[in-house]
Amino acid sequence: MFQGRLQRLLALLARLPGVGEKTAQRYALHLLAADESLSRELGAEIAQLRDRVAPCNRCNNLADRPTDGRLPVCDVCADSKRDGAILCVVARVQDLLAIERAATMRGRYFVLGRLLSPLEGVGPDELPMDKLLALIRSESVREVIVATPPSVDGEATALFLKQELATRALPHVAKLTRIASGVPHGGDLEYADPITMGRALAGRQEL
Amino acid sequence: MFQGRLQRLLALLARLPGVGEKTAQRYALHLLAADESLSRELGAEIAQLRDRVAPCNRCNNLADRPTDGRLPVCDVCADSKRDGAILCVVARVQDLLAIERAATMRGRYFVLGRLLSPLEGVGPDELPMDKLLALIRSESVREVIVATPPSVDGEATALFLKQELATRALPHVAKLTRIASGVPHGGDLEYADPITMGRALAGRQEL
Repeated sequence: MFQGRLQRLLALLARLPGVGEKTAQRYALHLLAADESLSRELGAEIAQLRDRVAPCNRCNNLADRPTDGRLPVCDVCADSKRDGAILCVVARVQDLLAIERAATMRGRYFVLGRLLSPLEGVGPDELPMDKLLALIRSESVREVIVATPPSVDGEATALFLKQELATRALPHVAKLTRIASGVPHGGDLEYADPITMGRALAGRQEL
Repeated sequence: MFQGRLQRLLALLARLPGVGEKTAQRYALHLLAADESLSRELGAEIAQLRDRVAPCNRCNNLADRPTDGRLPVCDVCADSKRDGAILCVVARVQDLLAIERAATMRGRYFVLGRLLSPLEGVGPDELPMDKLLALIRSESVREVIVATPPSVDGEATALFLKQELATRALPHVAKLTRIASGVPHGGDLEYADPITMGRALAGRQEL
């Protein structure tokens, strides 16, 4: 329907997650109708994103890349009020953000970047174990909270972390925990799937 | 949660229609994880959008701005297979696209850019009537299809067009029609499905 330039923009917009033809059109028409500064500034930010944002050197969370050549350090790692004895291991930055929204985890994070996945051919060598273990040793971490998702790959990764930390992280890690899996808050028992219900029962706590 | 650069990108993304905090985050994380060419190319296209895309000189639809200084002409206006005797008047480019999806309108378009709106202080002087009338005369248009939306402002604009064309466009316009109400009252042309839009065109009535 549209000519070259706009078609090209629409095709690129449609590569964003969840964006189809109509949403791409809606964004493009908004960018053409809104204040011109929006398209100039948004375009510049997106084009320069990969130069300006980089993984945190300590935990792999996202951070600004300093212009003076220093290594990028994220806000959580830079926050001196965080408890350095607690380390929460997550698969992705999105998961870190979800945990931060709960605002109850006082420690710091380590982002694995991926999960073990036999089906997708992701083996133990592709997890950043050396970096994780070096961090545990150098920062005297006492508790590691494994917050990989309660999926097949997430559980396999949790089990692998348990084995690795039990043999390689002693005597530092006194406590190794796994986030609970069960019926979500506000959820209806009637609609919980059998695996979730089984986990809720298996993980039951003293009242 | 994030540092400066990423926060700035998230704030700009959230100015796109229908994009909230979570969607902006999802887009930004995808741009950081996907092939780097996506952020480079998408950023460049968005930044240069307003230089490269402009209203069609004839109908105000969107068109590429030629680099050799020629005036921009959209695909519909450039298509010699279109019936120049039929002119469909719409409020917005989105509405033109919705009508094109029905694929039953053989004529060309004219995009008003706005509707009469007493509440928002948009009066007759702010509609491009001179350009519309010049186009009707120079191209010997025989039928004008008024496809403004079935809203208060859209109906007011249709009535105004009827009065103007009756007095100023004779003897050219032999037939002045209005799309049928297959589109629900207060509805938005942009979201009408193609069948509904096709019926609205097929069932058009004399104004």
